[in-house]
Amino acid sequence: MKLFDKVVVIGAGLIGGSLAWAIKNRELSSEVIGVTQHKESWQWAKKIGAIDNGSCKISVAKDAQLLILATPISTIIKLASRLSEIIDKGCLVMDVGSTKREVVSVLEKTFTNYVGSHPLAGSEKRGIFNANPDLFKGSICILTPTKNTRQENIKRIQKLWSLLGTRVVVMSPELHDKILSFSSHLPHIVAFALINAIPTDYLRFGSTGLRDTTRIAGSNSYLWADIFLSNSKNIINSIQSLQHNLLQIKSAIQRVDRKTLIKILRRAKQRRQRYLGL
Amino acid sequence: MKLFDKVVVIGAGLIGGSLAWAIKNRELSSEVIGVTQHKESWQWAKKIGAIDNGSCKISVAKDAQLLILATPISTIIKLASRLSEIIDKGCLVMDVGSTKREVVSVLEKTFTNYVGSHPLAGSEKRGIFNANPDLFKGSICILTPTKNTRQENIKRIQKLWSLLGTRVVVMSPELHDKILSFSSHLPHIVAFALINAIPTDYLRFGSTGLRDTTRIAGSNSYLWADIFLSNSKNIINSIQSLQHNLLQIKSAIQRVDRKTLIKILRRAKQRRQRYLGL
Repeated sequence: MKLFDKVVVIGAGLIGGSLAWAIKNRELSSEVIGVTQHKESWQWAKKIGAIDNGSCKISVAKDAQLLILATPISTIIKLASRLSEIIDKGCLVMDVGSTKREVVSVLEKTFTNYVGSHPLAGSEKRGIFNANPDLFKGSICILTPTKNTRQENIKRIQKLWSLLGTRVVVMSPELHDKILSFSSHLPHIVAFALINAIPTDYLRFGSTGLRDTTRIAGSNSYLWADIFLSNSKNIINSIQSLQHNLLQIKSAIQRVDRKTLIKILRRAKQRRQRYLGL
Repeated sequence: MKLFDKVVVIGAGLIGGSLAWAIKNRELSSEVIGVTQHKESWQWAKKIGAIDNGSCKISVAKDAQLLILATPISTIIKLASRLSEIIDKGCLVMDVGSTKREVVSVLEKTFTNYVGSHPLAGSEKRGIFNANPDLFKGSICILTPTKNTRQENIKRIQKLWSLLGTRVVVMSPELHDKILSFSSHLPHIVAFALINAIPTDYLRFGSTGLRDTTRIAGSNSYLWADIFLSNSKNIINSIQSLQHNLLQIKSAIQRVDRKTLIKILRRAKQRRQRYLGL
């Protein structure tokens, strides 16, 4: 089903590249163009069939019917006004950034037909070399319209993500950032802090538990510094909730309070089974 | 290569059952007997070929040449003196508990030929139904002798674990507990605290990051309460190190100090790559 004549993805990395590839595979656009900083990246994307063509220049966004912004947040914001001068007035614009309040407030002022989105899928591995056209299948995609977003545009973006196999959930940018500060940003902070908390000589005794718990500490430092700083208030709050829960465990251990300790550990196990379905 | 005529494993669960199975597969004993609390467990172990025979009674430990204690730590300590009256004086005794200082100090007083061990392998899934004869292959096994441990016994236990495909490392019970409080116990505490820190309504938005980071929060609550309480001093210390590292990240975010933040995140990624080989 063709939804667009020309889709242009700015930043054809893990998320952008996978998205371009998924759109191509589902034949949702006559043409899918990828823009990357380095020539090798879009050439690889073209070679594996993730895009029809590529460029290092954002001027290829001209005539696009859908413009997808998939670079780190700070780059999205940097490129926005130049892109707004390149594209047609009718062009639909969507970003896939991991925090939404800041980026939505800038982009909805810059573009007439903008809808914010965030597919809850990814990996600690970056770049087009790790792209996968099935990355989004079965995952949740959050759309973050505001009172300024046109209903018709929400519906079009909703249809796109549904056809790519995601379960679409609509909420405000503010609620999105609050939820994600707990469900995604906090696990990353925990992973970074945990690996740094372990003395170097002891790391080689880490088993599968440590490996899995810190997998996402392998994520890109610049990308995640951006995310943390663009959602700082919520993240401080989520860190405080973690600190509180750590203190409860620590205090039960110090008091040799086996009953409370078991209660805390059981609650964790049950919440995981019940709400993560594991 | 036969090392023993009769091996008896008390507690043929995930670790004990896998160990019995590995010994049988490598034909290191003429006979491998499993003891479990419930009849169904040793019957299952026998059915899958993990043991030659089983029982719910520890009296089957009579005539054993190697006695393996693989129940939770509190049960090991509870059963020790009764077992010491059942077995022959020459019987080699080994436990596989996750903390060592407390259990070693009790068992080396109870048994003449005792060596403490801890294979760094496992899973959040318990019981004989999750046993696997290859569980230990390629992992590290720590032996924790003291000045009272006979050299000859250390060599025999070292040989056993080497033949099962583990890399054997020898250290004191005290150092073992210090290292493990960081490399294993702290990741578990982090996983339990993290899942409890997230508001219930937000859990369903957790992606693969949250799932992996909290996988070990699915571990058995009683078992881990035992571990935490039998290594409390070291664990309090490891929690403090985590708290310190969390504070550093929190403070960099609060100060909008992007440079420090990137430095912290990069350090985590590099340590993971360098020392966990990931």
